[in-house]
Amino acid sequence: MKLMRVTAPEDVLKIIDDNFTALESVELPLEKAGGSRISEPIISPEDVPGFDRSTVDGFAVAAREAFGASESIPAMLESVGEVLMGQAAPPIKKGQCCQVHTGGMLPEGADAVVMVEDTDVTGNMIQIFRQVAPAENVIHRGEDLKKGDTALEKGHRLRAPEIGMLASLGITKVKAHRRPLVGFFSSGDELVDYHNTTLETGKIRDSNAPALLYLAGQCGADVKYGGILPDKFDVFLEKSREMLEEADLLVFSGGSSVGSRDYTALTMKELGKPGLLVEGISIQPGKPTLLANCQGKPVLGLPGHPVSALNIFAIFGRAIIEKLSGQVGAIYQPSVKAILARNISSRSGRTDYIMVKLNKSEEGLIAVPVFGRSGMLRTLSEADGLLEVPTEKEGLSSGEMIEVKIWE
Amino acid sequence: MKLMRVTAPEDVLKIIDDNFTALESVELPLEKAGGSRISEPIISPEDVPGFDRSTVDGFAVAAREAFGASESIPAMLESVGEVLMGQAAPPIKKGQCCQVHTGGMLPEGADAVVMVEDTDVTGNMIQIFRQVAPAENVIHRGEDLKKGDTALEKGHRLRAPEIGMLASLGITKVKAHRRPLVGFFSSGDELVDYHNTTLETGKIRDSNAPALLYLAGQCGADVKYGGILPDKFDVFLEKSREMLEEADLLVFSGGSSVGSRDYTALTMKELGKPGLLVEGISIQPGKPTLLANCQGKPVLGLPGHPVSALNIFAIFGRAIIEKLSGQVGAIYQPSVKAILARNISSRSGRTDYIMVKLNKSEEGLIAVPVFGRSGMLRTLSEADGLLEVPTEKEGLSSGEMIEVKIWE
Repeated sequence: MKLMRVTAPEDVLKIIDDNFTALESVELPLEKAGGSRISEPIISPEDVPGFDRSTVDGFAVAAREAFGASESIPAMLESVGEVLMGQAAPPIKKGQCCQVHTGGMLPEGADAVVMVEDTDVTGNMIQIFRQVAPAENVIHRGEDLKKGDTALEKGHRLRAPEIGMLASLGITKVKAHRRPLVGFFSSGDELVDYHNTTLETGKIRDSNAPALLYLAGQCGADVKYGGILPDKFDVFLEKSREMLEEADLLVFSGGSSVGSRDYTALTMKELGKPGLLVEGISIQPGKPTLLANCQGKPVLGLPGHPVSALNIFAIFGRAIIEKLSGQVGAIYQPSVKAILARNISSRSGRTDYIMVKLNKSEEGLIAVPVFGRSGMLRTLSEADGLLEVPTEKEGLSSGEMIEVKIWE
Repeated sequence: MKLMRVTAPEDVLKIIDDNFTALESVELPLEKAGGSRISEPIISPEDVPGFDRSTVDGFAVAAREAFGASESIPAMLESVGEVLMGQAAPPIKKGQCCQVHTGGMLPEGADAVVMVEDTDVTGNMIQIFRQVAPAENVIHRGEDLKKGDTALEKGHRLRAPEIGMLASLGITKVKAHRRPLVGFFSSGDELVDYHNTTLETGKIRDSNAPALLYLAGQCGADVKYGGILPDKFDVFLEKSREMLEEADLLVFSGGSSVGSRDYTALTMKELGKPGLLVEGISIQPGKPTLLANCQGKPVLGLPGHPVSALNIFAIFGRAIIEKLSGQVGAIYQPSVKAILARNISSRSGRTDYIMVKLNKSEEGLIAVPVFGRSGMLRTLSEADGLLEVPTEKEGLSSGEMIEVKIWE
């Protein structure tokens, strides 16, 4: 029997990083660019803020005029009025001040703002109980960004803060890497479309297609479903070739039959060079995973087992989508800390993922492994997340503080 | 000067939980139900799996026929052929076995599967080198779910595993709580639409609208933008009333002007009882936040400061959207562990959120606080996430192991 040559998970991630590159860039309106990565640096077209602004509610003053002011010996200044939001501020002269709100423009003649809590108003005369340093409670024009500064580096992902910053600069369109299209096939003669209400003996519904299509969307890809491929090689290859013309990443959710796995491997060879890169991963669940580079496009062959397929796609499918989307630098995998409720054994030399349910307790979260003999989706649906047992470990002990990756 | 009555963040979350309820349910096709929460339990319409299946590649046998088999004294059985995927298995008799693949149907007469690694094939005679117990490497019909079992409880969120499980049951439609519609207004006379390329003196672009609309979408809501409200109370109220008829959550991104904050508070009173619930939160950034319940609908008044607005929406806006979407039980906020690079001071009695950048080092991730005098979006765009300094703490020390909530 031929043994599977397995690759360590971290090496698979490196292979992905080395083999594939970001997709070409497109111009997107800012409102539709959220989640994408910019394909060229963004240069600030203007100073931000565009004028000296107050960072508090209070009175704009020349700092020297309030010098030495205290609770017992307040300074006294005449208010010339109020800086209306969105309007130019009236200038102030010696002996004067001007009411200003947070974000309001600093009047000419003022260089600091006294907080409203440190003042008292009697008619248009303002008592000031605390001295301020020049520039106190003021943000100067261009302090955040100067015209010509790099606002965002190439590869930066547009999250809510970036969208806000670009909007504040009046940037309404960005050049970003195109969103990948994942072409998806199921395979295996035992599979029928999940819309079938009755099943013939021996058949099972294709549950991987809707689950993985949803997961791919969550990872930031568009998806196209090509249906269930029959265990006939010429059809398998022809449909795969058609899909690969359009898709940026081709994914096979393999049937359990040896035929469908063989066809997937053979198809990867036929679709273009350099071909097969990975023919197994030292990971559990998900060992029988195939990965190829067919003329620069990634082709991923997932195990047919639903939990394995989801686990592999969540780790490696996501990494491929990130790479195609223009990711540079680190990606942080958030997790929650919990106390392990029981011992877990694991084989050294393999990275194990264990499904856990989280329960609240006085000492913090308790992670209870959810075992199912079958390892079916029912079990995963009871789990809040996955616990990784690193390759070098032979298990984890009850009471250990561990990290759980939440399934979202 | 009137002092703001502030509420602790955890009390605000409790107020949200007590005041608002899940939206009505709608029927969704499974492919569009991802991320939503089911509004009634889902009962399994059939046994899963639907037949006894092998969990390995090997030979289906009657366990008693391989009793005592070992490397030195193998059992010998005649193979009657192969269980083809998706087809009923041929029955086996005394002295016989049948090749079966992972997921394949167990033949009548077999009660266990010998792994292919423990066999040797000579023509149609199979040598078996290891005995198996009855039921070994087999998952029985209904072992995962029996017909009539509760597959998912009410309120369960549909992630990829749940979608897969429902598809495997042939469930193509689900009843789920409707996705909330967030009605969104900006306010403040200093604001102009961010599509404006040139700015008049004193004006700033409305950057909160696109940033918060994107964030609301990420939180699982649909959004409707009502534009920038003028500092004219009658218009402010009329437009808010119109929007609240349609929206499930009304959000004001307040201008910095006192007027717009006053109008927001006044509008909350006019829109319906019980009215204002929170008029400030002991949190930094984001203290001047308003929250009301207007005839059962949540109305949120965000501070105008962009970083404050995003911080508040990411915590409390998200909590409201989750509640309207039918969330029951705990939500886990994933984070990454990092070593704090410098001391941070904080005021006790207030929950502080500090922006940090993460750098990799040999000891693990290092969290470096990103300070900007302005606290503007430029600073947040350089940050990977937020560090929470709990209410009771007066700061954190350099070298402390802390948790960083990643900004996604």
